[in-house]
Amino acid sequence: MVKEERVMALDLGPRPSLDPDIAAYFAKCEEKLGFIPNVLKAYAFDNRKLKAFIAMADDLMLGDSGLSKLEREMIAVAVSCANHCHYCLTAHGAAVRQRAADPEMGELIAQNYRAAALTLRQKAMLDFAVRLTEAPDKMEEMDRQALRRAGFKDRDIWDIAAVAAFYNMSNRLAAATDMKPNREYHYLVRDMVGKEADARSNAQAGPVSAASTNRAGETAQGRRRRRQAV
Amino acid sequence: MVKEERVMALDLGPRPSLDPDIAAYFAKCEEKLGFIPNVLKAYAFDNRKLKAFIAMADDLMLGDSGLSKLEREMIAVAVSCANHCHYCLTAHGAAVRQRAADPEMGELIAQNYRAAALTLRQKAMLDFAVRLTEAPDKMEEMDRQALRRAGFKDRDIWDIAAVAAFYNMSNRLAAATDMKPNREYHYLVRDMVGKEADARSNAQAGPVSAASTNRAGETAQGRRRRRQAV
Amino acid sequence: MVKEERVMALDLGPRPSLDPDIAAYFAKCEEKLGFIPNVLKAYAFDNRKLKAFIAMADDLMLGDSGLSKLEREMIAVAVSCANHCHYCLTAHGAAVRQRAADPEMGELIAQNYRAAALTLRQKAMLDFAVRLTEAPDKMEEMDRQALRRAGFKDRDIWDIAAVAAFYNMSNRLAAATDMKPNREYHYLVRDMVGKEADARSNAQAGPVSAASTNRAGETAQGRRRRRQAV
Amino acid sequence: MVKEERVMALDLGPRPSLDPDIAAYFAKCEEKLGFIPNVLKAYAFDNRKLKAFIAMADDLMLGDSGLSKLEREMIAVAVSCANHCHYCLTAHGAAVRQRAADPEMGELIAQNYRAAALTLRQKAMLDFAVRLTEAPDKMEEMDRQALRRAGFKDRDIWDIAAVAAFYNMSNRLAAATDMKPNREYHYLVRDMVGKEADARSNAQAGPVSAASTNRAGETAQGRRRRRQAV
Amino acid sequence: MVKEERVMALDLGPRPSLDPDIAAYFAKCEEKLGFIPNVLKAYAFDNRKLKAFIAMADDLMLGDSGLSKLEREMIAVAVSCANHCHYCLTAHGAAVRQRAADPEMGELIAQNYRAAALTLRQKAMLDFAVRLTEAPDKMEEMDRQALRRAGFKDRDIWDIAAVAAFYNMSNRLAAATDMKPNREYHYLVRDMVGKEADARSNAQAGPVSAASTNRAGETAQGRRRRRQAV
Amino acid sequence: MVKEERVMALDLGPRPSLDPDIAAYFAKCEEKLGFIPNVLKAYAFDNRKLKAFIAMADDLMLGDSGLSKLEREMIAVAVSCANHCHYCLTAHGAAVRQRAADPEMGELIAQNYRAAALTLRQKAMLDFAVRLTEAPDKMEEMDRQALRRAGFKDRDIWDIAAVAAFYNMSNRLAAATDMKPNREYHYLVRDMVGKEADARSNAQAGPVSAASTNRAGETAQGRRRRRQAV
Repeated sequence: MVKEERVMALDLGPRPSLDPDIAAYFAKCEEKLGFIPNVLKAYAFDNRKLKAFIAMADDLMLGDSGLSKLEREMIAVAVSCANHCHYCLTAHGAAVRQRAADPEMGELIAQNYRAAALTLRQKAMLDFAVRLTEAPDKMEEMDRQALRRAGFKDRDIWDIAAVAAFYNMSNRLAAATDMKPNREYHYLVRDMVGKEADARSNAQAGPVSAASTNRAGETAQGRRRRRQAV
Repeated sequence: MVKEERVMALDLGPRPSLDPDIAAYFAKCEEKLGFIPNVLKAYAFDNRKLKAFIAMADDLMLGDSGLSKLEREMIAVAVSCANHCHYCLTAHGAAVRQRAADPEMGELIAQNYRAAALTLRQKAMLDFAVRLTEAPDKMEEMDRQALRRAGFKDRDIWDIAAVAAFYNMSNRLAAATDMKPNREYHYLVRDMVGKEADARSNAQAGPVSAASTNRAGETAQGRRRRRQAV
Repeated sequence: MVKEERVMALDLGPRPSLDPDIAAYFAKCEEKLGFIPNVLKAYAFDNRKLKAFIAMADDLMLGDSGLSKLEREMIAVAVSCANHCHYCLTAHGAAVRQRAADPEMGELIAQNYRAAALTLRQKAMLDFAVRLTEAPDKMEEMDRQALRRAGFKDRDIWDIAAVAAFYNMSNRLAAATDMKPNREYHYLVRDMVGKEADARSNAQAGPVSAASTNRAGETAQGRRRRRQAV
Repeated sequence: MVKEERVMALDLGPRPSLDPDIAAYFAKCEEKLGFIPNVLKAYAFDNRKLKAFIAMADDLMLGDSGLSKLEREMIAVAVSCANHCHYCLTAHGAAVRQRAADPEMGELIAQNYRAAALTLRQKAMLDFAVRLTEAPDKMEEMDRQALRRAGFKDRDIWDIAAVAAFYNMSNRLAAATDMKPNREYHYLVRDMVGKEADARSNAQAGPVSAASTNRAGETAQGRRRRRQAV
Repeated sequence: MVKEERVMALDLGPRPSLDPDIAAYFAKCEEKLGFIPNVLKAYAFDNRKLKAFIAMADDLMLGDSGLSKLEREMIAVAVSCANHCHYCLTAHGAAVRQRAADPEMGELIAQNYRAAALTLRQKAMLDFAVRLTEAPDKMEEMDRQALRRAGFKDRDIWDIAAVAAFYNMSNRLAAATDMKPNREYHYLVRDMVGKEADARSNAQAGPVSAASTNRAGETAQGRRRRRQAV
Repeated sequence: MVKEERVMALDLGPRPSLDPDIAAYFAKCEEKLGFIPNVLKAYAFDNRKLKAFIAMADDLMLGDSGLSKLEREMIAVAVSCANHCHYCLTAHGAAVRQRAADPEMGELIAQNYRAAALTLRQKAMLDFAVRLTEAPDKMEEMDRQALRRAGFKDRDIWDIAAVAAFYNMSNRLAAATDMKPNREYHYLVRDMVGKEADARSNAQAGPVSAASTNRAGETAQGRRRRRQAV
């Protein structure tokens, strides 16, 4: 079934067998999310490249940080919005909806974060990330000072910069290869009404940031069943 | 001495001790290049982040590819030129001068690749990389087709895209943190006259792409001595 | 309840009583959609302005045209994407999902139409609309010729231009006033899996284009039948 | 004679007969201005579209507002300057010359309002209108606050936004169809020297904003006679 | 009287006495045009700078060239339009109206040359000039080839480039200093109807391109008298 | 030898004999620099154009001014960086390296002046010059005020504007003609380490700004010899 799905516009030939640690990682995705994020399938033509990508992505989005996981996903989405990246808006839009337990806010960031009711902290964070995206050559000390005034420590500024920079990379790889997001993302965390959504969904982080949009850890089967019920 | 040098505008606190494999890597840089590239020092506040960065950078710039190492450095520099990135123009500008054994060509790409006398293949490659940098949302199948017409295989297109995307990340991390390149880069491979330069310099690849601008494998000591002679 | 909801960032004072024909129109919206589109509430401070807006919007989006209603909504969304308009992406994104009976395609146009699998006709139409949005001063005869080559008649070109131009107006009015879309839009036509979507969502047709995400008022049953026939 | 004049680059077929109210409106234009503005002739292929356009344009430019008619024309021209719209710069440039009774100021706004000696109120108004034109996605509360500080009420802000938005529509319809302004506009209100011009010209508003550039209410016949005298 | 008129936003102190050759040049301007172009008054704080400016401007706009004087003025105006330069649009807009003996065409180029009915040669010429203005870093051999295909020789290409480049300089000097054009320019060559205008006006070239908009050689006195008659 | 070197992409035919004063000027270049700057060779097809160019360039870059010669070269390079001009970055990059006696600072301005450790005065100066380059139509009184606050007099502001404007011209002439810098520039002032460089190099100004990068007055012969020694 995987073979038939078109993941991107490049034909990189038959996929080599996965290294054991990667195979285990894929199995965990399948179990937790019900699917392998397409960006991983795209990278799977080369075990070394795939591992480097996972190592960087997982550290940035799931590792220790002064930024919450939701905040990091918000950066990913605001950057991807500025770059009009279909893949990342779909995958990380789902992640924001899930982590915020708020489908409307998720969509808002994907459309234009300036229209969202953000805290001053979040606003400063996204202003920096988007300015870095649109005019990296114009960054100056006063941009960092604005973050410090909003309460961020230098260590947090690194993380804001690193996440924003990473999605400027991912957006471009996706654009250059016409990478297609898994269809499942479209349907994740759409039904919750505002804040009533099950906040526990936040508790179970998926192993891969790009894929960690599974709803409250339910199995893929369960999710499929639930949707039929609707 | 390292402590006194300012590497970037963020203060991330005291550096933790390096993991043994990283310490060995740094020692190898010091031996081969005569210095540790500042981007590695900047990342060294966190062993995990540093390893992920090195893994990705070295795979992209030094791993197997249908693109020569020079071509990959040309992409790095053309992208960094579009983003006006001081750090990467300095470090990778030196790399292009060294790998091309042509200081003039190195500077040309750093200033505006359109003014360089490129092969059609190189021109198509850099057109794609810069367009991906400036307007990722506008990429279409015809952009990939232009590369195929210029003789690139789909596997090469991935590499062009991945290298261009990577420097869109690095440029932004450098801009956001005001990262400073090692002063040594400024003076590398400046004196050679045109093509007469020792072409063997191409043969010895440094371990870190960002640092691999050592001239013809001479030791740092030897290089230092030579400069005094001038 | 309406009084408490914030529709935009401007306070235009108490709403005058609606003219009878407008009151009837609002009642029809309420009955068919279950809500009054916020853009109408925003305009309701002045009956004359409201009528002019409805007259133009309904003619453009629901009147006779060589463009299908779906195509017109696609233009609305592609333009709103280029302008990052939260209001219109939400309201007309829902309309595309509904008229296409395809939530994924709806989102795609809202993110970046270039990533969608469009017909040549649709691609030419959206290329023109987005170019007109981004660089109106650069339009030339060859832009019109591209539409003619794609099979559009001059009368269709007027409609493409008029719809694209209209959303360049609406996007800016929404941006200037921070207009908020009705929350209901977020949840419309989300659950359908591809073409199997529950066509009942279609049944509540709005009379106003901004809300009118039903397809020409045909019954859901009729549409399903028709589609099978196709 | 009308038949021979080229109004736009689209051929929309023979013009249907005008509805009686529109025919009366055209007669009034002819009587007051000496010509039918070409934008109305362009729209005349469809009575319904024409009426919707006139209703919106006349309400915006001639209806009640906290903005003077001159101020609204200044917005129209500053927006059209940003969009380089030949049609609107010609028609509304004439209108500013006439309403300001100052041909130099009219041209100045059409060239670059920043070079004009504006009041703080006018400057704030045009800054907002042009920013809304160039970067609608960047509008924020502080943009509205700048207008409030300059003395505008929220009701005025709506009008500034609505007029600026309307000309972003009109500019694009004109650009997409290569709409040609009536030649008469070029020659209107050119000879007055500064402020000495008959200020009464402001008093007689024409029925259609786009056409309301007749000079001090003189009949078309009288105007034609005058030009021959020169 | 000169002392009271504000020529620019900078106060450069009392004007030194003019060198004899410049004084004679100014006298000739006064005699032929009826005024001294403000750009010359602005430069007059330094005889050396003034001479260098006049030498370059007169050579470019009035010297031998494969381009007609009208074509050179068209370039000046199209460039100034792209840069929204009030001074140059006013002074050289008048020059195009005069040299073309066509006030409508003059305005058209000042608004958007793409809307003008240009010959293929003129279109190619202005496309090149405006592209050079907007994106100098993107110029390539194919841009020069487009000019050659349109019939231009390499010597003409130099002139197109040199004139376009010169107005990119002048536009910026005017913008940086808020330079004000002489009011007389606004009223020059406004009344002629189409091509019937006295084509002889072309025959008498003024000494300074920026000032050479005198109407058909009439004396300043005669012109002043005529205006009073209106 | 001159005949064989390609100076630009245009073929302007055989060079006429130089006027005596120009021939003397060229001889002086050859003596002092060891070469004739290619921009002069490019202009040499027409003695009159060449003289006008030299007169303006030399006055701006070497004449009396409240700006130091280094500051004027910094403006030239910052503007050329914004425009990605290969010719001017090479020629004037060498000039900044030489006048600052600091090869690193020279490169920095050529890459992105915002990354340089500038004084407030220098920063304000380059901010103005680059803003004037990128958005001439947006200049306002507050831009001039920022320069006055940084200590510049109105006379200095003229010079900042005039130099920035001049390189906006030169950059475009170079881009339009694909002008190639002399290869010698690449190798000038590369070896000095920081501030230890011979500061006397500043004392001997070359006659042509574009060429005045000769190193500490050494003869061309001596320099050539030195390089062979390396």
